Amino acid sequence: MTMEAERTLGEEQLTQLGELAAQLRVDSIRCSTKAASGHPTSSLSAADLLAVLISRHVRYDWAEPGNRANDHLIFSKGHASPLLYAVFKAVGAISDQELVDTYRQFGSRLQGHPTPALPWVDVATGSLGQGLPVGVGIALAGQYLDQLPYHVWVLCGDSETAEGSVWEALDKAGHYGLRNLTVLVDVNRLGQRGPTELEWDLDTYRRRVEAFGCQAIVVDGHDLAAIDDALGRARQATGPTVVLARTVKGKGVPEIENKPDWHGKPLKPDLAERAIDALGGVRQIRVTGPQPEPAPPTGAPTGQPVQLPRYDRGAKVATRNAYGDALRAIGVRRDVVVLDGEVSDSTRADRFTDAYPDRYFEMFISEQQMVAAAVGLQVRGYRPFASTFAAFFSRAYDFVRMAGVSRADIALSGSHAGVEIGADGPSQMGLEDLAAMRAVQGSTVLYPSDAVSCAALVAQMVDRKGVNYLRTTRGGHPVLYDNDEPFPVGGSKLLRGGDDDRVALIGAGVTVHNCLAAADELASAGINARVIDLYSVKPLDRERLLAAVRDTGGRLVVVEDHYPEGGLGSAVLESLADLAEPIRLTHLAVRGLPTSGTPTELMDQAGIGVSAIVAAARASV
Amino acid sequence: MTMEAERTLGEEQLTQLGELAAQLRVDSIRCSTKAASGHPTSSLSAADLLAVLISRHVRYDWAEPGNRANDHLIFSKGHASPLLYAVFKAVGAISDQELVDTYRQFGSRLQGHPTPALPWVDVATGSLGQGLPVGVGIALAGQYLDQLPYHVWVLCGDSETAEGSVWEALDKAGHYGLRNLTVLVDVNRLGQRGPTELEWDLDTYRRRVEAFGCQAIVVDGHDLAAIDDALGRARQATGPTVVLARTVKGKGVPEIENKPDWHGKPLKPDLAERAIDALGGVRQIRVTGPQPEPAPPTGAPTGQPVQLPRYDRGAKVATRNAYGDALRAIGVRRDVVVLDGEVSDSTRADRFTDAYPDRYFEMFISEQQMVAAAVGLQVRGYRPFASTFAAFFSRAYDFVRMAGVSRADIALSGSHAGVEIGADGPSQMGLEDLAAMRAVQGSTVLYPSDAVSCAALVAQMVDRKGVNYLRTTRGGHPVLYDNDEPFPVGGSKLLRGGDDDRVALIGAGVTVHNCLAAADELASAGINARVIDLYSVKPLDRERLLAAVRDTGGRLVVVEDHYPEGGLGSAVLESLADLAEPIRLTHLAVRGLPTSGTPTELMDQAGIGVSAIVAAARASV
Repeated sequence: MTMEAERTLGEEQLTQLGELAAQLRVDSIRCSTKAASGHPTSSLSAADLLAVLISRHVRYDWAEPGNRANDHLIFSKGHASPLLYAVFKAVGAISDQELVDTYRQFGSRLQGHPTPALPWVDVATGSLGQGLPVGVGIALAGQYLDQLPYHVWVLCGDSETAEGSVWEALDKAGHYGLRNLTVLVDVNRLGQRGPTELEWDLDTYRRRVEAFGCQAIVVDGHDLAAIDDALGRARQATGPTVVLARTVKGKGVPEIENKPDWHGKPLKPDLAERAIDALGGVRQIRVTGPQPEPAPPTGAPTGQPVQLPRYDRGAKVATRNAYGDALRAIGVRRDVVVLDGEVSDSTRADRFTDAYPDRYFEMFISEQQMVAAAVGLQVRGYRPFASTFAAFFSRAYDFVRMAGVSRADIALSGSHAGVEIGADGPSQMGLEDLAAMRAVQGSTVLYPSDAVSCAALVAQMVDRKGVNYLRTTRGGHPVLYDNDEPFPVGGSKLLRGGDDDRVALIGAGVTVHNCLAAADELASAGINARVIDLYSVKPLDRERLLAAVRDTGGRLVVVEDHYPEGGLGSAVLESLADLAEPIRLTHLAVRGLPTSGTPTELMDQAGIGVSAIVAAARASV
Repeated sequence: MTMEAERTLGEEQLTQLGELAAQLRVDSIRCSTKAASGHPTSSLSAADLLAVLISRHVRYDWAEPGNRANDHLIFSKGHASPLLYAVFKAVGAISDQELVDTYRQFGSRLQGHPTPALPWVDVATGSLGQGLPVGVGIALAGQYLDQLPYHVWVLCGDSETAEGSVWEALDKAGHYGLRNLTVLVDVNRLGQRGPTELEWDLDTYRRRVEAFGCQAIVVDGHDLAAIDDALGRARQATGPTVVLARTVKGKGVPEIENKPDWHGKPLKPDLAERAIDALGGVRQIRVTGPQPEPAPPTGAPTGQPVQLPRYDRGAKVATRNAYGDALRAIGVRRDVVVLDGEVSDSTRADRFTDAYPDRYFEMFISEQQMVAAAVGLQVRGYRPFASTFAAFFSRAYDFVRMAGVSRADIALSGSHAGVEIGADGPSQMGLEDLAAMRAVQGSTVLYPSDAVSCAALVAQMVDRKGVNYLRTTRGGHPVLYDNDEPFPVGGSKLLRGGDDDRVALIGAGVTVHNCLAAADELASAGINARVIDLYSVKPLDRERLLAAVRDTGGRLVVVEDHYPEGGLGSAVLESLADLAEPIRLTHLAVRGLPTSGTPTELMDQAGIGVSAIVAAARASV
């Protein structure tokens, strides 16, 4: 077949596609009406796009969702889940019964918004403006790492283009020339509570898309032949393509077409019945779309054995430096990929980049896209490490939250934590990151005090499930541990302690050093203080804390370079909440708004320095 | 003077401006070299822009920063603080000594990045891509509310245009036609660790800016006459203008001009000395720029007295509905302004909009811009209320964090909290918002259980300082309180209780209702359970908790529709950490990843439903 012929659909094919589109519409209505919940109108507008896409363009072996050569299909407009699940029925992935009877029901995998509980869903969507940035990550993997010919297809809503993350994503798609990425924007003109900002101003959409470095193709989203032509051109393009499809919300059900008050509302049974009749009734069409080419076997992910960096005890080494050193060390594994938000010389991610430039992706100052790209890379089996200042992960918090919902396996490293950073001032200080990261579903939160423990933790993050967050420190502080010391996640270290400890000083990261100095001062005053390094903030070493409570009569001083809410102190308290023994915990944390100054000045001002710890310990015994 | 003449600078004026620019450069070098910290090169690139801006365009009475008619000057590239403070010296706001001797020192108001500790600084910057969105909020106030002729001038870096928030801001600037907004982009080609994404591709910048609805003017950022012309045109434009200035990083110091390794590095003293000499030495030029027109007196902010909505005890009313009703009620105050992220029919903010359309700003789906606009509006003395789903405030977390650093007075309302929302699934459930919002500096966190308490709290948020967060619930639950009951922030309510309580059930929001049902069930089994409504999560009513510990022997059951980390349970534990008495706290929270289902199914699955509370209470007594 010639290229021309591929682009020209015959009458029969158009009829078949029309029938399929009608089925997708009918099924979108059926499942949402049965559930009395969901977004049928946002599904109807995109039904024609999906009918053509799955019949003729998405190369996918639906019986084998793990096939490495499969294309990827992401519903960035996750609320159109009725349509996505109707697609899954059409390709034979789920049954008609599962679709209609279980949608949005308790215990069903067909949830209100898609999640990877379904094997054909790469990532959870439903927080708008996130599916596309994740798709960029998958496309990066395809074009630069896998070098496989799979294509990434992302369906976006028009409303979500108001999210800046969409433009971060298109910018990166253009910058990296992602020819394996096609975005379909369902421009149905209506948002949740009225018209969208741009309504049907397709020309403005086009100019924006083009200015951000992508090819734009404007089509009538209900013209099957035009859609087919656009998608064919997109697959053959030399860069990313955005198909801007002018559509009608509720298309196919005249009573609700293009009506503003129909967002997120299922059709009542009588209206649903009329609509289904008008659409030609229930169908059981089974589509077999194009199949992927067989993928070559993967290479082994590991190269040389990992040789972690080694440090001299007592030498002053910043944990951010150890992060960079460890990244470089684990870089012998070919599945390790690194991203940074244009601060790799600060986070020290650049130590990896110098050695493995092909597996480093510069995300410039777009933290949302950075985290999303990490999520996309792990979809393809890579082990992404993404870094920026701890404070600036707050910019991507919704993406981290959704990574938790997706059960994505990613590693994040936030440098420049706390007032310890000194002169740059509060805008640059991560002081709420422990609270935020601990509250992410299934997360791990690590905060090493020295270079040896930092490197050991980085090595474990590679294979750890879920969202893994490592907090590093700007300044150099003494190496505390021997190089071969193990640091299991969920563990802790006893740095000072004996049978006659009268108080336990508990720190993590930089405050461990303050606790050690305080313990020395207390010892010279005849007060034995235990010192615990809680490098694993989540999960926490409850056994170590129980022993400290037992041995000291419950006298704990927790010290953290973080605001008092939700951080290390809370983690300790949560862990011991159900204990019968009394605990008197003195909680030293950053309680005011910091300013500029030296690290010591600022830690002293915040009451987390050595003298404050000594005073708290004295007061407690 | 004719308009033409205004735009044509004579030789003398150009010389004066050149001298001023040299002074700004010299002072940027002096203060950062003295501090051995800071970003001189990022200051040097923009010195010519600022020399022209403050001499001829910014209408500002520097002796009276509170003058309502003053223009606004925001350094979105907050790391160029040496330049900003050099400007403050040039206009006579600060002394040469304060500039050179205190920059970045402990206790100085000249912090590493600007904060409103300085009266001429509206908001803290330093998290890139935030100053412009805040400027949009100020410009909205000027054009739509104040109707004063002040202009908003924002200096952006080129690197920060990689942040999606910049495009959210320009999009809104274009949408609202903000003729009082001018953005100066200092396109110096170099980011922190190398070239920016677009380097000196001014044409791409121009196309992006224009596509987003703003006028673009490209200039040589070191051509004083061209800058003057551009700024003059910007002030007279009929919409927002972006001046794209091609500049050289480190301009004026040939040894470091346009060199990639000079970001964020102060000049060593010997280099500084040579550079200052070459720039003509230290100057003490004092600029008097244009002054503002006198502003008319402000109207009284209050209109009619506020009449809060009233509800019938026992009626099922969603707290989100009460939020909308209360917003409408406080709308009689002319300083109340409302924003929403295109979900006002869900958050119920639309109940305000219907009554006061002129004081409602639709932000579409751009939560970052929404929070930033709120911060900008409060700069001008308004009392903004911004709402979206609780989950989606995570999208704007960095903006909320920076609002805390700015000590901005804003009110946020997050609806659809917790698994209670039901069928929509985990992407739509706010389950980490209490942890995140509690950890914001100076924040207040409120979570009412019924409509009466919700309305009462909204009324107090109007005048409350700092970041105020209100968590509302999707579903209707019984009204528990009489209409005139007071609900002070920091208080709580005892809903069941007596002298012989054996356990205290502590909830907030929806779990209060579950606690009440559990208490009834326990009572019928002969177990007296106290029920506490902790509607004020931060600050917390410690006295009420102390009494509960004392009266029940420390048997507490805390129940929250939130992940277990950092939420209500942590707040209770933090508050009681130093207590000598033993506490056995059973913490019921959402410990797994939720799915879709009915609210009751999901609360039961999470172990925060009635039967789980009963079981926990029984186990504890």
